[in-house]
Amino acid sequence: MLKLCRKYLNWIQNSVFEGEISEVRLHELLISAKKIMKEESDSIIIFKGRDIRWTEKQIVGRERSNIDIFL
Amino acid sequence: MLKLCRKYLNWIQNSVFEGEISEVRLHELLISAKKIMKEESDSIIIFKGRDIRWTEKQIVGRERSNIDIFL
Repeated sequence: MLKLCRKYLNWIQNSVFEGEISEVRLHELLISAKKIMKEESDSIIIFKGRDIRWTEKQIVGRERSNIDIFL
Repeated sequence: MLKLCRKYLNWIQNSVFEGEISEVRLHELLISAKKIMKEESDSIIIFKGRDIRWTEKQIVGRERSNIDIFL
């Protein structure tokens, strides 16, 4: 799954990816992801910000490590 | 760290939390987090959406498991 998601988005931490992606490409990613995930136990959570101007990213500590918070 | 973050936000997956929080409470959380994290190796990444109307959350598969993507 990591390899798949990295084709579409930037890996930032553990199981977390970020990036700008079209609805078409997102749809493509999810179709591929569903083929390799177990939907009864795995999950993909997508937070969409409609406009990058309304989202802000703040990093405390080292850029690549293990905790993330979404407000 | 998990226990600390759970006092302020909702745990959704692995090291990922979400929720609405005031700047004051966020500041309080980060002060406490800095006391227990190793800033040279650990990191906290905060994605802030200024208005809940401009963010959308989509879940594929089971609600609580292991993958998340931020767009």
